[in-house]
Amino acid sequence: MKRQEIILPQTTSFAPFEPTLEEIKDAQKRIARHAVRTPLLESDELNRHTKARVFVKAENLQRAGSFKLRGALNRALQLSADERQQGVVAWSSGNHGLAISYVARTLGIRATVLMPQEAPKTKIDGVRANGAVVRLYDKSREVREELGAQIAAETGAVIVPPYDDPFVITGQATLGAEIAEQVSDVRTELDVAFFPCSGGGLAAGASCGIHAINPGAAIYSVEPEQYDGMATSLAAGERRTASSNVGSICDALLVPTPGELTYPICKKHLTGGLCVSDAEVIAAIQFAYRELKLIVEPGGAVALAAILAGRANVVGKTVAIALSGGNVDAEKYASYILQT
Amino acid sequence: MKRQEIILPQTTSFAPFEPTLEEIKDAQKRIARHAVRTPLLESDELNRHTKARVFVKAENLQRAGSFKLRGALNRALQLSADERQQGVVAWSSGNHGLAISYVARTLGIRATVLMPQEAPKTKIDGVRANGAVVRLYDKSREVREELGAQIAAETGAVIVPPYDDPFVITGQATLGAEIAEQVSDVRTELDVAFFPCSGGGLAAGASCGIHAINPGAAIYSVEPEQYDGMATSLAAGERRTASSNVGSICDALLVPTPGELTYPICKKHLTGGLCVSDAEVIAAIQFAYRELKLIVEPGGAVALAAILAGRANVVGKTVAIALSGGNVDAEKYASYILQT
Repeated sequence: MKRQEIILPQTTSFAPFEPTLEEIKDAQKRIARHAVRTPLLESDELNRHTKARVFVKAENLQRAGSFKLRGALNRALQLSADERQQGVVAWSSGNHGLAISYVARTLGIRATVLMPQEAPKTKIDGVRANGAVVRLYDKSREVREELGAQIAAETGAVIVPPYDDPFVITGQATLGAEIAEQVSDVRTELDVAFFPCSGGGLAAGASCGIHAINPGAAIYSVEPEQYDGMATSLAAGERRTASSNVGSICDALLVPTPGELTYPICKKHLTGGLCVSDAEVIAAIQFAYRELKLIVEPGGAVALAAILAGRANVVGKTVAIALSGGNVDAEKYASYILQT
Repeated sequence: MKRQEIILPQTTSFAPFEPTLEEIKDAQKRIARHAVRTPLLESDELNRHTKARVFVKAENLQRAGSFKLRGALNRALQLSADERQQGVVAWSSGNHGLAISYVARTLGIRATVLMPQEAPKTKIDGVRANGAVVRLYDKSREVREELGAQIAAETGAVIVPPYDDPFVITGQATLGAEIAEQVSDVRTELDVAFFPCSGGGLAAGASCGIHAINPGAAIYSVEPEQYDGMATSLAAGERRTASSNVGSICDALLVPTPGELTYPICKKHLTGGLCVSDAEVIAAIQFAYRELKLIVEPGGAVALAAILAGRANVVGKTVAIALSGGNVDAEKYASYILQT
């Protein structure tokens, strides 16, 4: 088992874009009416298991069931009146689609969401229930960014990207700031935080949010081992694509390459990138079922999986992890909690 | 479908014991170090479905997985040094046993817990994992109160009853006070609250806790329709035993008769008693899975079931419900979320 020692973040490299504390605070105010300040929970059993004090940010309790609401809200609330008339278009494995369709319904905007055919049924159904038009595509022969650009060109809709967008990244940064504030509310200071990672929007945003308040915290991304684009890139010092992508139960974390905007931020703010196996993710889902009484989807459970599996040495540390989403088909969830 | 209009509580009857605001506040301070101030959550979908503003007290996130921790803590923390030496004995369908064994471990006290043979495996295993001695009994031929009294006589252990005890009721009252405070924190006032009910410890305690802060709120108990002892008693104006008890999936709510201490408090503080079917409970568990991302056990879901099924007219009201526990075997839970 790879067990990484926690070291302090290096802040020598340069990111072409990153949200400032003021921008993050503005975003917090902007989204406050529509986003939930999700609870920061603790579990005796988790503390005992990890020999650390672990704060669990229950972002699966966010509206639309994941952190994606923050970025989608922060983007949509800055559309002009004309842009609102034109509607929005997004591509998403599911959670960003749920978020943007929720926001679009709330603000009275038309939305089109491109989703892979094999996205979880609960995510596709949820996007439709929010009143958005769903366009399913075939990953093997269609490129979602091209389809999205085409719809935008035809309809005038504004593209709301899932991660590579300054407004979206700044929205996700509010999650980091909120964690740092809530940890500070209980009069302690964060040593290290772990965030699920795919395109890198959460890892980039949340690390800026934490470092704006608590510059000394070490921050790690966590990916499925089959989709380790961020870990590989951080190790190489430049954007790389995951070496293999043979499939993972983490349907929300299947982007093989970090984003153009998110990667430089992660390079500057992250101490490193960790990976977990599907079996470790299932163990984390079961732990959350049994000990936390929370529904967590596979992609939302990778940070918990990393500390449960001892992928980093957190002994004696004050730790935060994000449970980033809870949208999972009941059939799949039942099979995960029953797996031995 | 029985749909009850909300009417204001009648406060003319007399309860021989009930906790005062001062006693409840003392209990809050006493248990604060060990009990979680569980979050009060909202769900757009629940508000939409009920046409009300519903606050969900997520007491399934309490330590030991249910509200029972509050009463057990409040009792155990008032044991003398001599009594602590003697240990405690409790009988429980499961959650009170989990709570008292958790508290006993935390305080370094020996505990014996009497549990029915058919209690959920996760509850029996959990009590054992907390280091308590479990004595399984056969409901059809053994009386748990008698077994408990016998163990107490033989060992000198102090009995910690599941509900008919002033300290325990006062501990559960902290849940009501906390709800009233949290609702007041968001600058609104409670119209009506719904609590799961078996022996009546939660309904009695929490109604005192709410009325100590918000005397105008209407409060209802909710029982499985097969175990409607409280509803029957409230309707008759005196303690009655449930007319039938043919079994219910709500393993935590199988007491057929309200307690001697709890009933007079409920008679004074409750507007009425509601009942729900097993099918309505399963629908509530599925709703909590899908919309709230929370694991709720059958007995913990009855208040949610009551408002989802329209058992009371809450349209336009500010409502609180307690999700009182989340300890459920994975096999059972999987079958509930998959049921169509």
